[in-house]
Amino acid sequence: MIQIPRGTQDILPGESYKWQIIEDRLREIAANYNYHELRTPIFEATELFERGVGGSTDIVNKEMYTFEDKGGRSMTLRPEGTAPVVRSYIENKMQHDVNQPIKVFYKEPMFRYERRQKGRYRQFVQFGIEAIGVENPLIDVEVLSMLMHIYQSFGLKNLKLYINSIGDHESRKAYNDALVEHFRPRIDEFCSDCQNRINTNPMRILDCKKDRDHELIKNAPVIYNFLNDESKEYFETVKEKLTEIGIDYEVDYNLVRGLDYYTHTAFELMSDAEGFGAITTLSGGGRYNGLLELLDGPKETGIGFGMSIERLLLALEAEGIELEQPEGIGLYVCTLDDNSFNKAGTLLHELRTSGISADMDYKQRKLKAQMKDADRKRAQFVIVLGEQEFETGKVELKNMKNGETQNVQLDELVNYLED
Amino acid sequence: MIQIPRGTQDILPGESYKWQIIEDRLREIAANYNYHELRTPIFEATELFERGVGGSTDIVNKEMYTFEDKGGRSMTLRPEGTAPVVRSYIENKMQHDVNQPIKVFYKEPMFRYERRQKGRYRQFVQFGIEAIGVENPLIDVEVLSMLMHIYQSFGLKNLKLYINSIGDHESRKAYNDALVEHFRPRIDEFCSDCQNRINTNPMRILDCKKDRDHELIKNAPVIYNFLNDESKEYFETVKEKLTEIGIDYEVDYNLVRGLDYYTHTAFELMSDAEGFGAITTLSGGGRYNGLLELLDGPKETGIGFGMSIERLLLALEAEGIELEQPEGIGLYVCTLDDNSFNKAGTLLHELRTSGISADMDYKQRKLKAQMKDADRKRAQFVIVLGEQEFETGKVELKNMKNGETQNVQLDELVNYLED
Repeated sequence: MIQIPRGTQDILPGESYKWQIIEDRLREIAANYNYHELRTPIFEATELFERGVGGSTDIVNKEMYTFEDKGGRSMTLRPEGTAPVVRSYIENKMQHDVNQPIKVFYKEPMFRYERRQKGRYRQFVQFGIEAIGVENPLIDVEVLSMLMHIYQSFGLKNLKLYINSIGDHESRKAYNDALVEHFRPRIDEFCSDCQNRINTNPMRILDCKKDRDHELIKNAPVIYNFLNDESKEYFETVKEKLTEIGIDYEVDYNLVRGLDYYTHTAFELMSDAEGFGAITTLSGGGRYNGLLELLDGPKETGIGFGMSIERLLLALEAEGIELEQPEGIGLYVCTLDDNSFNKAGTLLHELRTSGISADMDYKQRKLKAQMKDADRKRAQFVIVLGEQEFETGKVELKNMKNGETQNVQLDELVNYLED
Repeated sequence: MIQIPRGTQDILPGESYKWQIIEDRLREIAANYNYHELRTPIFEATELFERGVGGSTDIVNKEMYTFEDKGGRSMTLRPEGTAPVVRSYIENKMQHDVNQPIKVFYKEPMFRYERRQKGRYRQFVQFGIEAIGVENPLIDVEVLSMLMHIYQSFGLKNLKLYINSIGDHESRKAYNDALVEHFRPRIDEFCSDCQNRINTNPMRILDCKKDRDHELIKNAPVIYNFLNDESKEYFETVKEKLTEIGIDYEVDYNLVRGLDYYTHTAFELMSDAEGFGAITTLSGGGRYNGLLELLDGPKETGIGFGMSIERLLLALEAEGIELEQPEGIGLYVCTLDDNSFNKAGTLLHELRTSGISADMDYKQRKLKAQMKDADRKRAQFVIVLGEQEFETGKVELKNMKNGETQNVQLDELVNYLED
């Protein structure tokens, strides 16, 4: 028997309504903030991620689904959403669009070949937004406010927002130099990844999972002290505005994120719900002020976040929040004999093309089994069609919520149910 | 500059609303027919398509995106939707579900490495349905009625439905034998593909694009004459019922579809709109009565169709049908100075978290440029914030549709707009 690829999942008909509810809500909230959907292909030139995500990251080094297409070009299944959006921005010259900043959202499957564990899939759906073309603390606040709005709209309570500033390029460079000086003398006490990181991206030593308890990490220099005046002012404005609109946050100076291109505001949203499991990050993002140029684009800057829908579902579960199942079908048509079975199809056609959801038992089981089926399908109304109904042209319409019945002309049924 | 992979497209923010409208409509219609969403992964074991689509098809031979994952397993980006649904059905033992038939829809990107031409992309979005578990002409009619309902609901008029019956296995075998006898003596006059097809799947010679004008194709045996009584009766019932519910169709005895697993009802929906271009097929499908067993599943049968959303958009364009753009934002906030700019963010936050879509100019351009921006964003209302507004606590709310203005308390604005 052929099985589903390891680390991926089917979303079955009994579960998919949850995804639909979440995705509808995300689109609606995005519209409130005036973000519009951008769809990019499932795969991109491998170079896009090598350059745009960065050669020193786990994503690029270990986790990408890379293959050669029939034209001999190296392609990679999208591991994250920002680089494709930026590629599209550059290719479509969106810097010349009259609407600025460009505000887009995406909702797409992403692919990372990772070790299997709860809440991690090799294919997962990421919703994300990007605002490109304006550098202003108010945009950063807009993005953070939308992020919190999304999670709060589902009733989640155990949310912790952590923010930091990585500063501009100058600040970042000064800090990196200080980190190299701090770690270099004792770098052989660190894992092999960190021994590479000190050369490629020293900040990433700070969020190493293996070395997190090393004393040098605990007493490492703090980035805030290396921010230049401009970067400090930017960060202070973001914090003030967050307080002003009532968004709680905590500053975490070790929050530097895994990707190379962040500058200024960086953030992570965590769940501290009991039972959520080891991976507590719900979403992360930040401002990227060098990414567009890195990809041969214009000197524009952006900010965004990405969130996994699988992880949101886990958070809802951990807090005992249920998404309401949509209504069942409008009408279930029971049939008593071959004649009514054959005629029921025509009635169904009329109902459905009039916008009423309806179904019947194509297996022609006994009436009792059909009534059970109607219950399972949570039918709002039920009728039974037999010889008598076609003779008199009348049916008894049963309201399944309150058990009330009513006689309705067969040819008035559609009108009646449409109201 | 890194470019989008050849044969794929970005769906830009100014276009994506069309996809959203179509996908929402498809989901709504699917619900009327009691079909629910099933999502399967973007890639599957290559063997699934080799066995489930068939080794003699162009899809499997020429068009698949196949690669090895890091675990050394051969994977393929889904080229079509039926085999994955059937894989999921078998793996999740859906034959034991109390709801029968299993009725699902999918809406997923598909991948085929094809020559580029209008209306064909290497990644395209396919919507499809499958009803598995009951073999009855009424189900076939349900599927066809839903297909027509979808296209008609968008106002399309130039639709031509072609149907055929390939019969059951017995009929199919008798017909294949007759075709071999018919073509064998002169098979060297046919293309190399057809020379293979006579051994692997003779019926496919009938829809060969290269040889379609060959006299042997024109006077080939007609499948209807090889249907056994049961298959004939099944076909006749489908046709009767279609007529009964007012669905026009034409029988096309050469319609045998490219895939190996069809039996009984097969169909294609074409557009005969002028200017639609060379590829006129909108959708196709049929009944598959051997596919589940072929994939080591239970002896159950199914029927379904697939349609490309790209192709639907082309058909709408060809008939001059426009999808209505959604409403613009609710409120645009203009700001006159730094103070009001800084305070506007807080107001936006209040509006958006109350469900009102709102935006402002983060570039702090002149008032005239902001008003233009409001127009472009098709704002329903506009306010201007300056010193005076914060002093008096009142704003002038301008209705952009009729030009009327009204004085509103700043702290009443959200309430006012919510109504």
